[in-house]
Amino acid sequence: MMKVKVAINGYGTIGKRVADAVSLQDDMEVVGVTKTRPDFEAKLGAKRYPLYVAKPENVELFERAGIEIQGTIEDLLPKADIVVDCSPNKVGAENKAKYYEKAGIKAIFQGGEKKDVAEVSFNALANYDEAVGKSYVRVVSCNTTGLTRLIYMLKTNFSIGRIRATMLRRVVDPKEDKKGLVNGIMPDPVAIPSHHGPDVKTVLPDVDIVTTAFKLPTTLMHVHSLCVEMREAVKAEDVVSALSEEPRIMLISAEDGFTSTAKVIEFARELRLRYDLYENIVWRESIGVDGNDLFVTQAVHQEAIVVPENIDAIRAMFELAEKEESIRKTNESLGIGKVF
Amino acid sequence: MMKVKVAINGYGTIGKRVADAVSLQDDMEVVGVTKTRPDFEAKLGAKRYPLYVAKPENVELFERAGIEIQGTIEDLLPKADIVVDCSPNKVGAENKAKYYEKAGIKAIFQGGEKKDVAEVSFNALANYDEAVGKSYVRVVSCNTTGLTRLIYMLKTNFSIGRIRATMLRRVVDPKEDKKGLVNGIMPDPVAIPSHHGPDVKTVLPDVDIVTTAFKLPTTLMHVHSLCVEMREAVKAEDVVSALSEEPRIMLISAEDGFTSTAKVIEFARELRLRYDLYENIVWRESIGVDGNDLFVTQAVHQEAIVVPENIDAIRAMFELAEKEESIRKTNESLGIGKVF
Repeated sequence: MMKVKVAINGYGTIGKRVADAVSLQDDMEVVGVTKTRPDFEAKLGAKRYPLYVAKPENVELFERAGIEIQGTIEDLLPKADIVVDCSPNKVGAENKAKYYEKAGIKAIFQGGEKKDVAEVSFNALANYDEAVGKSYVRVVSCNTTGLTRLIYMLKTNFSIGRIRATMLRRVVDPKEDKKGLVNGIMPDPVAIPSHHGPDVKTVLPDVDIVTTAFKLPTTLMHVHSLCVEMREAVKAEDVVSALSEEPRIMLISAEDGFTSTAKVIEFARELRLRYDLYENIVWRESIGVDGNDLFVTQAVHQEAIVVPENIDAIRAMFELAEKEESIRKTNESLGIGKVF
Repeated sequence: MMKVKVAINGYGTIGKRVADAVSLQDDMEVVGVTKTRPDFEAKLGAKRYPLYVAKPENVELFERAGIEIQGTIEDLLPKADIVVDCSPNKVGAENKAKYYEKAGIKAIFQGGEKKDVAEVSFNALANYDEAVGKSYVRVVSCNTTGLTRLIYMLKTNFSIGRIRATMLRRVVDPKEDKKGLVNGIMPDPVAIPSHHGPDVKTVLPDVDIVTTAFKLPTTLMHVHSLCVEMREAVKAEDVVSALSEEPRIMLISAEDGFTSTAKVIEFARELRLRYDLYENIVWRESIGVDGNDLFVTQAVHQEAIVVPENIDAIRAMFELAEKEESIRKTNESLGIGKVF
């Protein structure tokens, strides 16, 4: 079997996870990863994968640090069939213009890029087929991925109306030690809507959703508080039952001691390297109905949730598998659906 | 002019603020405050007010600490016309049975008590008249006070339908050093509804409201994200205009640098002792309309917002003034409405 050759541009929070996930697939392989600076992540990356320098002008920094490199991004791209861009927000679009178009290579971008960087904004459950054969695909952000999966399951199983969601955002990732918010609540943005609602519509255009968002002094996970107007009578147990069908949604119970995101992460530390949670984490008891409104609370591990989506996007773009087959393979390789 | 003699049972977070506010009124006076334990707050209290011991069995502790006391709660109550109970949640109801009923004294309870502790749950704007002449009144909690004021202004000025609110709660007050939540988001409760919606209905029974609530790693203020269905077309500027009329609602602008509750409190530290904010703090730019939905974000200083309500409750219970006159006097004495 020919394997799709994958380059990862940016071996950071998302890139290192995507690289490991690609390595676990039987139909793709990592031909190289890039780093901008020679830090500890570059040193770890060089031990695991052929390492290239993302900014050609920084080659000397790597040589001085004694890190073995195979060349620069310009040497890497000709060896790959596709590049997964995992560089910081907005840099992906610059890389597209500077490198990917010239190299004539397919590319996946992350949710920090504007939607017009790609032909399609992607979520495996919601619109796998739209990415089939495409050259440029954008995997939506962690929060949008979490919202999209949940809303897709609800709209597939029930008739839904307006969605109002409050996004409770971790302020920075755990490794961050220069930015943050120690004590306070930050409306971000102050004016409605937050970008999350419109971003969901890049994948599910016919959904009526308004979101507000707040940055909070925590690093572990985002939390979403959703209120979904139902156009038909629905029981909480029917929603629990529908969500239980989807492996990328993990139902947890407060009765098991899951009192907060801190407990969810303590649980994840027992499960997987880097305590990665690829699943939407939905509190079973939070699923409740009041009048026509369905309420749901879920947590999203911002560092990990998009990883399986990147893998499925690669399969769609190279027509390696149909939607269900790709998702099944990805889930199996990452241990999704096997937890409880 | 005869002054109403006020005893404060529990010179803690709320009690010390209520005592100082009572002292500023021309129609009431503090005849004594109580403390359970001889800590620094007791020492400060004894310098400012006649101090009594809340638990008679603890008299010896105060004597050993060298704090001058005037007796116990049982000595204080006969000197007062009313007691404002500011003891911890649920202790107010115990005090009522143990002391207040026997002493035949009027009493105000705080929002941590169940509603049936009193004849009426109170908010000055919303239902001042219902407390007139009553013996037992419960001033609703900080979050309920904030919600009730805002909703009262909206329902008085517009035709409103269902309200969905997400309560972003500070986990503990700033002085707390034994409990907390350092890194995480805690749905509290996990199942809908949080108690805030039903608690608003103790004051405004005909309001349709559902609330969800989360505890967050911050001490400064609560934040409420409201979505209010409007039964008539409304413009954001009309809502801004209506809220501007009410002194107990302070409109702030993100343009002035109010990016988070941390900035709001930094501003308050320039204004008042203990940086007390008695007002609902509403971000002007958060007031927005999407379809039939009105969105508003406000912050609530949990330590201070109920203080003016306690003063107005005293006036209502003794028929010292009509609603508008009481609110005007309270506002003037506390500097409410004079900030911008």
